Amino acid sequence: MGLRQIVVMVSAFLVMGIGLTFAQANEKELEAVRAADAAWMKVYHAKDLDKSLSFLDEQGSMLVSNAPIATGKDALAKAIAQDFAAGTLTWHGNKAGVARSGDLAYTSGTYEWILNDSSGKTATDKGKYLTVWKKEADGSWKVLYDMFNSDLPPR
Amino acid sequence: MGLRQIVVMVSAFLVMGIGLTFAQANEKELEAVRAADAAWMKVYHAKDLDKSLSFLDEQGSMLVSNAPIATGKDALAKAIAQDFAAGTLTWHGNKAGVARSGDLAYTSGTYEWILNDSSGKTATDKGKYLTVWKKEADGSWKVLYDMFNSDLPPR
Repeated sequence: MGLRQIVVMVSAFLVMGIGLTFAQANEKELEAVRAADAAWMKVYHAKDLDKSLSFLDEQGSMLVSNAPIATGKDALAKAIAQDFAAGTLTWHGNKAGVARSGDLAYTSGTYEWILNDSSGKTATDKGKYLTVWKKEADGSWKVLYDMFNSDLPPR
Repeated sequence: MGLRQIVVMVSAFLVMGIGLTFAQANEKELEAVRAADAAWMKVYHAKDLDKSLSFLDEQGSMLVSNAPIATGKDALAKAIAQDFAAGTLTWHGNKAGVARSGDLAYTSGTYEWILNDSSGKTATDKGKYLTVWKKEADGSWKVLYDMFNSDLPPR
């Protein structure tokens, strides 16, 4: 086997190896993103403001209905606190996707929001959400964008 | 130079080459996604249903406020036709990001919607949007998810 053949073979294996690494990383990252989505829901449902905030990227944004876009820690803390005051939120992801390079992902699904009423009664809002996730330098997945809106007519 | 050194050097150049290719592809794809976002707005603003539909992936979804999620061509055509009937929409992207692998991307920005009123008057809605894009097999960018909501109080 000549030098040229060896170089071609090594190159081919390297490219295949990188391809396989991507496919495996992708599968692993898809699970990680789904887990992050569910873990975020858990602390959001429990109304833990600090832990809920910790799932967002430093430049993360929440696009809340009937309010301007909230970007950065202070605005996000305010938006999340308003969600907590309004009621109790539960969501379930039913779709997720990750880029081959494992640095960008999305999740989407449905939510149920038990809303407090000024009269002490509750109302139930149902809707859908879309979240864009970014892989941080430390390997964790953080929320870059989060948005949800109601399936129901305006109240 | 021994065989081992040659193999190491070729491998190093190959990995560097792949890295550079990603960086260049990323820059090019970011421009392509921004262009797709602007081109979609143009046909949406002009109320061209077929062209507006053509920007969505076959399994694309629109997450419209106060309506269930619309997925697939028939549901999307209905959702877009409803948007067209409601008024005239203009949007401007101000953020965009692409995965290193150039297969997944997002755009986000603001919209202005001149809404028709049953009395013949118009009202202006302002809000924000988030779009997730997928690179198709033919190299084009198509919408996987699109969602927008109002900054204003419920009407």
